[in-house]
This record gives sequence, C-alpha cells and structure tokens, in this order.
Amino acid sequence: MITELISVGTEILLGNIVNTNSAYLSEMCARLGMDLYYQTVVGDNEERMKHTVKMALERSDTIILTGGLGPTQDDLTKEVVAQVLGMELVEDAHTHRRIEEYMENYAKNNPNRKITDNNWKQAMVPKGAIVLDNANGTAPGLILEKNGKTAILLPGPPNELKPMFEEQVYPYLRKKQPDIFYSQLVKICNIGESQIAAEIQDLIENQTNPTIAPYAKTGEVHLRITARAKDEKEGKKLVKPLVRELKIRFGKNIYATDERKTLEEAVVDLLKDQKLKLSLVESCTGGALAARIVNVPGASEVFGTGFVTYSNKAKRKLVMVKKMTLKTVGAVSEKCAREMAKGGCAASGADVCLSVTGIAGPDGGTKEKPVGTVFMGCCYQGRVRVREFHFSGNRAKIREQSVVYALAFLRDCITGNDEES
Amino acid sequence: MITELISVGTEILLGNIVNTNSAYLSEMCARLGMDLYYQTVVGDNEERMKHTVKMALERSDTIILTGGLGPTQDDLTKEVVAQVLGMELVEDAHTHRRIEEYMENYAKNNPNRKITDNNWKQAMVPKGAIVLDNANGTAPGLILEKNGKTAILLPGPPNELKPMFEEQVYPYLRKKQPDIFYSQLVKICNIGESQIAAEIQDLIENQTNPTIAPYAKTGEVHLRITARAKDEKEGKKLVKPLVRELKIRFGKNIYATDERKTLEEAVVDLLKDQKLKLSLVESCTGGALAARIVNVPGASEVFGTGFVTYSNKAKRKLVMVKKMTLKTVGAVSEKCAREMAKGGCAASGADVCLSVTGIAGPDGGTKEKPVGTVFMGCCYQGRVRVREFHFSGNRAKIREQSVVYALAFLRDCITGNDEES
Repeated sequence: MITELISVGTEILLGNIVNTNSAYLSEMCARLGMDLYYQTVVGDNEERMKHTVKMALERSDTIILTGGLGPTQDDLTKEVVAQVLGMELVEDAHTHRRIEEYMENYAKNNPNRKITDNNWKQAMVPKGAIVLDNANGTAPGLILEKNGKTAILLPGPPNELKPMFEEQVYPYLRKKQPDIFYSQLVKICNIGESQIAAEIQDLIENQTNPTIAPYAKTGEVHLRITARAKDEKEGKKLVKPLVRELKIRFGKNIYATDERKTLEEAVVDLLKDQKLKLSLVESCTGGALAARIVNVPGASEVFGTGFVTYSNKAKRKLVMVKKMTLKTVGAVSEKCAREMAKGGCAASGADVCLSVTGIAGPDGGTKEKPVGTVFMGCCYQGRVRVREFHFSGNRAKIREQSVVYALAFLRDCITGNDEES
Repeated sequence: MITELISVGTEILLGNIVNTNSAYLSEMCARLGMDLYYQTVVGDNEERMKHTVKMALERSDTIILTGGLGPTQDDLTKEVVAQVLGMELVEDAHTHRRIEEYMENYAKNNPNRKITDNNWKQAMVPKGAIVLDNANGTAPGLILEKNGKTAILLPGPPNELKPMFEEQVYPYLRKKQPDIFYSQLVKICNIGESQIAAEIQDLIENQTNPTIAPYAKTGEVHLRITARAKDEKEGKKLVKPLVRELKIRFGKNIYATDERKTLEEAVVDLLKDQKLKLSLVESCTGGALAARIVNVPGASEVFGTGFVTYSNKAKRKLVMVKKMTLKTVGAVSEKCAREMAKGGCAASGADVCLSVTGIAGPDGGTKEKPVGTVFMGCCYQGRVRVREFHFSGNRAKIREQSVVYALAFLRDCITGNDEES
C-alpha cells in the first residue's frame, strides 16, 4: 500500500516547530509494512493544499494528513480534503457532545481560562466519514474513503495524535495490509558511524531481504534490519541470522537489540539486575544525566540522589572536592572528576557514582583545556575509573554527547567492559 | 524567490530520525524573506529523487537539499542533482586535501578508529560548482547554478550543516534577495493557546502587513509578527505598533520579545539583574529543570547548586524534609514542596530555591493524587509560595510541562507576578 504523509502548517514552513509527527508516523507506517515514498509539508494555504492533496491522491493509495484541524481560521485541512474528495460537511452530534464535555472538564481545572466559540467548528465532519474520538483534545480525527483512496486526517498536537493513531488508526490500517515489514534494531555505543559503515559494507552489498541500514544518533549508532514477510513469525526468522552476525562483529558494544530500549533503560536494567544504587554528580551536564535516568519509569528502584555541583563551592560542600584540587588542577581535571565520583558515593551512600565535569562553552576554554574537554569519573567497588573526552560542537551538542558517553561509561564500568580504558 | 527544501534519506521515511534540519532551514529562509511553499522528504532512491528534484526545479527558483552527501553507497544526492542539471563530476583537489587533513586529525584523537576508503568519494564535485568547505566533517557542501536555477546541497548532520549555512550559504542568498521578511516573536507563558487565539482574533482578521501567527509550545505560546519590507529598518517600523498592542493585551505574561530568548534565559537574566543565587530541588523532573537553566551560557553566575532528591531518603537527607511530612501527606504534597524549597535554600545558601515534586507516571497515581499531580514550592525572601498543577499526557510530557511551569513560576515569584496565586 503506497502511502504519503502531508503535514499542514505554515508554522512548519517558517521553522517554528520541528515536525516530530512525521517521524512518528513514518515509523508506524514502516511497522505496518506500508510503502512510504514521500513526506510533504505545505502551509495553511488553500490552493497549495489542494494541489498537494490532489497529487498525493494520484500517486498514493493512502494519505495521512496532520494538523490544520483546530478551531482557528487557519485550520483548513478538513475543508480542503472534503472539497477535493467531493464530500459535504455536516455537524456530528456525537463530536459536539464530546467537545462540550471536554470544555466543561477543562473549565473546572482551569478556572481562569475562557472557553471560546471557535471550538464548535471542530464538530463539523465530512458526511460518511469515520470519526476518531480525541481523548486529549477537541478536534476529532477523520478517515475518509472514496474511489479506492483513503485520507486519514489527524490533529497536529503529538499528545492528541499518538494515542489516536495507536488506538484507532493502527488497527484500521493493519487490517488492510497483506505483507508486513518486520524490523529489529541493533543499538551500538562506543563506535563511530563511518567505522561501523565500513565494517558492515559487505553485509550491505549483499543485502536483499532482510536489508540493513545504519542510523547515527548522538554518541551511538543504530542498525535497523528489516525483512519483508507475510507475518511476524516469518519476519523474525529472516532477521535472526543477520542479528547474530552483528553480535559477533560488535560484541559488547551492542547495548540493546530491543526496539524500544534506550541506553538509559539498558543502564537502569543493569543496575536493577545487580541490585546497585546509583548516584550522580554533574557539573557541565547540569542535571541532564539524572533527568535521562529518570526518563525510565521505575528508575527510583536504582536512583535516589543526584547532585548538580555547578559551582566550585557546591563541588566542595556537597561532594567534598578538595580546595587544593580546584586551586591546582581546576574543576575540569581528572583529579576533580575522581573526587566528585568518590565524594558522591560517600554523600549519597550509593554503590556506584558517576561524575561529569567539563567545559561546554562557548566561553571558558583554554589552550590546554579547550571547549569540549570533559572528564568523567566512575566510583564502583572502591575503585574510581576516569575517562577523558574531547567533544566537538556547540554547548548543547557537547552536553548532549557528555550525557550519552556518561551512560556508556557507566554501563562499561558495571559490566567490566572498561578494563582496557 | 520561491524556494523548496528537499531532505534526502530513507532513515527519515522510516522514522528513524526527526527532521530538525528542515525546521532550521525553514527559519533561515523566513529570515531571508524567501517564499518557502513546500518541504519534501524523499528516500535514498535514485528514481524518486530524480522525480522530486525535477519537480522542485520546475516550481521553484532555488532548491536546498540536505543529506545524502556522505561516503556510503546510499549517498546519492550529488550524483542525482548533477545528472538532472547535466553536470559532470570531477575530483576537487582542494576538497581532497581537506578530507586528508580532517582524517589525519581525526586519527590522532581517535587512535582506535579506522579511516575508511569510502571517504574519498566525497572529493568528487560537479564541474563548475561552488564548493562549501565543511569545518566539522568530510562532505563539502555545493552550490550549483544552471539555467537561472540554483541547487544548494548541504550535509545532513546538523553540526555540519548549520555552521556551513550561516557562514557560507546565508551571505550567498542574502545578496540575491530584494525584499526581506522582518519578523518578531512575542513569547507568552501562563495562558493557553485557544484563549490567546480568541483574544487576538480581531488582529488576525484585519491583518495584511504585518501578519500575526500563534505557535503553541509546551507550556507557552509564541506569536510571530511578520512584515514584508525592503529592509530591516522598514520591517521594524511596520512591526512595532502590533507588538505594542500585544503588550497591552498580555502584559506581564510576555516574558520575551527577543527572537532567541528562551524562558530559561529570561529567568537567568532576571536573577542576574537582581543579583540572586538560585538553587533547585527536583523530584519528578529529576534534574531536567537544572539542566534547562544550565542551557544558558553564563548560568554559573546565578546557579551553583541543584539537588535531585528522587528518593524520600534524599529528600530527608539533602534538604531536610520531615519524616512526619512524608509519612502523613507524602512526597507529592504542598507541605513537602514547601519543605523542599525551604530546605534547599538552607542547604545551598541560595537566595531563591524552587522545588518540584509530583507523579509523572505511568505508575504511582491514586484517586486523590492522579498521575500528573505536581506541587512546586518557591522559597524567596523568607516566604514559601506553593502552586499545584494537574498536567496531562505521558511521563515525558508531564515532566516537560513541569519544567516549563516551574520556570514561569520562578519568574512570577521573582518579579512579584504571583500575588494572586
């Protein structure tokens, strides 16, 4: 089934928001085995929307549109698609009632906010449409079927779109698909993208079904192995030998082969398995590493205490870094990272403590310690290991890389992978 | 100048990466006053790329392509565009030398990583192209001009693309533009999207030049006022009266009218102005609030200490929450938020301390305190103010909203905006 995504919104063309919906829907289409060849973004402009919708309906079987279903005058998606398909708009009593309930509930929780009349526009739907209830907002989704083509209209806000897609659209599309794509991710840390590309070149050259594709993330690389199959069981069988081969090639640097498992989840799982309590002492990452650990539901089982010791005073007071260390070698040094990790263990009573201290820039770099210099310490079983990094990029990028490499370092320390470092 | 963005990469169509480049380039095009009507994503497929490039060159003057310039076999952008424009590929000696230097430098810093031969493919460029040096990678950018059309090819990794665009492409495009769009953002916190839309409906109805457009962010709304003008001076003059009107309507809830100023920067600036030291005590946000403050370069002037008190033990030990409080009303309570904020001030010696404690889910909710219940305390000048929130969405969304509302709360406390709360 050839499919196409159309995101509607001048705000996307002006660069005011990042189009995360397309990434989400693309992944869902891939899982459903739908052939997604194009994503298009078009503004809130009637003529260009019409042109885009018409072209998409010509070259694809199913089009999925997001955005432009809201209450404002700019919201034209429903009107345009209905017009292209020749469908008339009528009021949907069920949706009208749902909007009413939603508004009443909203008013209760937000006594200072006004309910505005423009919301009722959202109860108008093309005659014959399948209406998709919106559990998290007022604009319903819509499925329109005509002349063998399907148009699926979804609200723009991700927290409205995602549950609607998963609960209502996914099952609808699943029924229509004969083949599926079964795919599995192999997630690798500690090795760079081009090295991985070189090491799997023979596999890529000989690929037919399954295929293999590398995706570079900050500080990690994901390899997606995808098989076209008639069902999940056959897909699994096709994918298995290639996954086994990758395990031989990348060994301990593979932290997950599970689709949804993040590096922080892998770390939290390891800590759980070994019944270890973690604490963190962060300078340049400023709490981002702790926040990443707390991304994992149930992190409380292994993580209780974090220190953001952004100032030297905090490093001394909270985790007992020595005055002399700060004076002689400074806060961005192997010695300071070591003392932070050790002090963090002592101050929290945790079994493992990871520390991060570095220069994220844009200021603060010197010739000896340029921006991007980061030291990390990991105190575990009475021993402190230290790693030194030299990251490139801007402040955000350096801090982001620091967080990922800290997680990889932590993983290596707990599993004993760091013996050569 | 009609412009179009084409992102190349099957990884985008499979949903493996979020297309942040398009957001960035769209914003840049808007600033340059270029008319951007479409963004398209196409996979690493020669035929469909050719089709997309041809269509884009028909309907637009300038096309900007990103991705597909790398060393792998999948990277086809340069080859396809050169073919469509009828340009031959030749080796560029300058680029070859740069790749050589880059690789040598890389090898020095990464002794364990191998340099692979596929990199030399990147030194081949269409004959007559303007070559854009890549300061952060091996693939150069390219500007191709033919038959009155311009194709600009940029590398996919954002840390390579952005500096290349700003230093080399922006000045190139600036010279070509007669008119510009001058735009200004008015950034508002504490008011919901639909209420703002209703309150500016009259302004939107009567708009010609400048125009006004609302963008909902998590916990805030940005209004973009855009004027078409012959230069920046005229643009500023056109935009000014509308900005003044918005200031009258939304008053103290406007935290910035500066394009780049984030809510965390507004807060850090306020703290700097008033020479206040901030500390933070976080439970459900788990360090994300501190990390957000540390996003701001120079945050060290106002922020030194953060506590991530994820466990009850940490709440007691680090910021002296009373055992009785945890036992009777629990960690997610007005009382606990109050004690965390007060204790945080005492433990850090800061002038202001903000605390956040809540239930981010998916587990841990009860009938009295459902998932999304969050309490925040702000201790300032000996007084602790508390706010209670009920957020909706998943774990990530609840934590993200908590961070934004915490920043807004902090801002209100320091400026005295919270008197009614």
